[in-house]
Amino acid sequence: MQAAEMIELWRGGRRESLHLGHAVICDSTGVVEAWGCPGNVIFPRSSCKMIQALPLVESGAADAVGLTDRQLALACASHSGARIHVETVGDWLTGLDLSEADLRCGCHMPQDKEENRRLTCSDQEPDQRHNNCSGKHAGFLTLNRHLGGGPEYVEPDHPVQQAAKAAFEEVTGEDSRGYGIDGCSAPNHACSLKGLASAMAAFANPGTDRRGRAMRRLVDAMRTHPEMVAGEGRACTSLMRAARGKIAVKTGAEGVFVAILPEEGLGIALKALDGATRASEAAIVALLLHLKVLDNDDPVISTYLTGPIRNWRGIVTGEMRTAPGFPS
Amino acid sequence: MQAAEMIELWRGGRRESLHLGHAVICDSTGVVEAWGCPGNVIFPRSSCKMIQALPLVESGAADAVGLTDRQLALACASHSGARIHVETVGDWLTGLDLSEADLRCGCHMPQDKEENRRLTCSDQEPDQRHNNCSGKHAGFLTLNRHLGGGPEYVEPDHPVQQAAKAAFEEVTGEDSRGYGIDGCSAPNHACSLKGLASAMAAFANPGTDRRGRAMRRLVDAMRTHPEMVAGEGRACTSLMRAARGKIAVKTGAEGVFVAILPEEGLGIALKALDGATRASEAAIVALLLHLKVLDNDDPVISTYLTGPIRNWRGIVTGEMRTAPGFPS
Repeated sequence: MQAAEMIELWRGGRRESLHLGHAVICDSTGVVEAWGCPGNVIFPRSSCKMIQALPLVESGAADAVGLTDRQLALACASHSGARIHVETVGDWLTGLDLSEADLRCGCHMPQDKEENRRLTCSDQEPDQRHNNCSGKHAGFLTLNRHLGGGPEYVEPDHPVQQAAKAAFEEVTGEDSRGYGIDGCSAPNHACSLKGLASAMAAFANPGTDRRGRAMRRLVDAMRTHPEMVAGEGRACTSLMRAARGKIAVKTGAEGVFVAILPEEGLGIALKALDGATRASEAAIVALLLHLKVLDNDDPVISTYLTGPIRNWRGIVTGEMRTAPGFPS
Repeated sequence: MQAAEMIELWRGGRRESLHLGHAVICDSTGVVEAWGCPGNVIFPRSSCKMIQALPLVESGAADAVGLTDRQLALACASHSGARIHVETVGDWLTGLDLSEADLRCGCHMPQDKEENRRLTCSDQEPDQRHNNCSGKHAGFLTLNRHLGGGPEYVEPDHPVQQAAKAAFEEVTGEDSRGYGIDGCSAPNHACSLKGLASAMAAFANPGTDRRGRAMRRLVDAMRTHPEMVAGEGRACTSLMRAARGKIAVKTGAEGVFVAILPEEGLGIALKALDGATRASEAAIVALLLHLKVLDNDDPVISTYLTGPIRNWRGIVTGEMRTAPGFPS
């Protein structure tokens, strides 16, 4: 099945650009609605961090070192590398008698404007705490302390990654379709969009067993601490705030976005075919509007979907629209 | 006709993302090769700046104030806002007894790393000279001086924009399909990809009349001063250097790229459907390789198309490929 027309950019009365993609909404029994091909196999990238964090909670590793919900939210985050993120990861590592050098995520300049400026203007390099995945990696190191694995915890056959893979296969209901190496060096297993949306629906309908309790705890951590999951001005943080903590959402590189809707018992997964973040952000807003989880007049809707596009002089030059056939 | 599969991103042995698009190669008689739909109507955005600069040269306005080839290259540029660009525009305006305040392009932070850092770390705001289109606008102001128009030279009915529109319609061989307002506030007329590629072929096969001389002068200015057309590390500059001045190329926002090949007598125009720059850059490299304008072992090819994609620890995580059916 072909990818569906999802998000359009308009200028001068003409469609200038078009984003195709696939999107699936699942409940606990299966697909509720879909656009494009639910069987399309994708790399979830960072959108599946709450799945990768399941063994951290289920194993008792999180409780063994007294992790807070704030830290668990950071374990599920692609954070901006702001001071609150960097310091929380630093303190977390110190609490494990580890240091930044024990991370295996690599360094990049933080997206957070203030921290980026501080480093740039003081001629400092970022360290691994600034990596947007450093919270996930602090979680991996916490699980690793519990499991007694070696230091190279991102190797695919390491006990930490084997545990993450097992959780991924169980909640997606699919054998791994293979893995790629993510930007942060951890393996990222492929699954169908339907499998990913099913997993999000499972997080939205947690049972009372160990897994269900871990799912509920991670979802609550994310929606209670949206500032830890991304950062100021970022889509994940803004959308969870706009929904007043009713939902958990998570972006992934190359145009992936997922959402967990506990009140509705629904999970969403989508991917822009071309990998564009502007498309995945607009599409998740459109689907959250479709499911009436966002207020029609919330400013976040115009920020990511309906707002006019303005140029450097503030003149309106165009707009984003959902494509005919995609919800708006 | 559907957009063609153009550029793919691969990770873990799987195609992760896909860019569709349209691409056309023309000679002076018409379409030579095409992928997708040659009739697809697009906004050329900044890719048509050499067309918008034709009246500046043809009218005698450029010679009246003794514009150099370096300035003409800047009139065709989407520059990085480096010191050389900002200072050249500033001197140009001073020479016209005008100032930065006479520009109508608006301000944005420069892409050039050093200048961006200088402004950021000294708490200075960018001015309109930093706008990537400020060279085009200095050209508009030069033409405006010659034509005696009013100060609001970006209004669609202003003599400067009427002259640009007339040149655009003549070289594309099409009536304007309407216009949008560009990021820099100037009108940007729509045309088919075939019309845009035909125009580039006209630049590649200039006659000996006034228009032909203006075309040759602008193409020579661009390929002689590639550093003025974009900046260090940018695709336009790097590709013109890699082709040792044999070609002129120009990027446009929302996934547009054009090329002028005087030795082959060919013009190229392409657009990534989704507007992605990484796709338009990779696709133009693929087509320039296809036409044997670039050496197979030139580093620019791995930078924009064939090189491995590495993560924050330098680990190879994937690669870009041309889609089956698109030249490689």
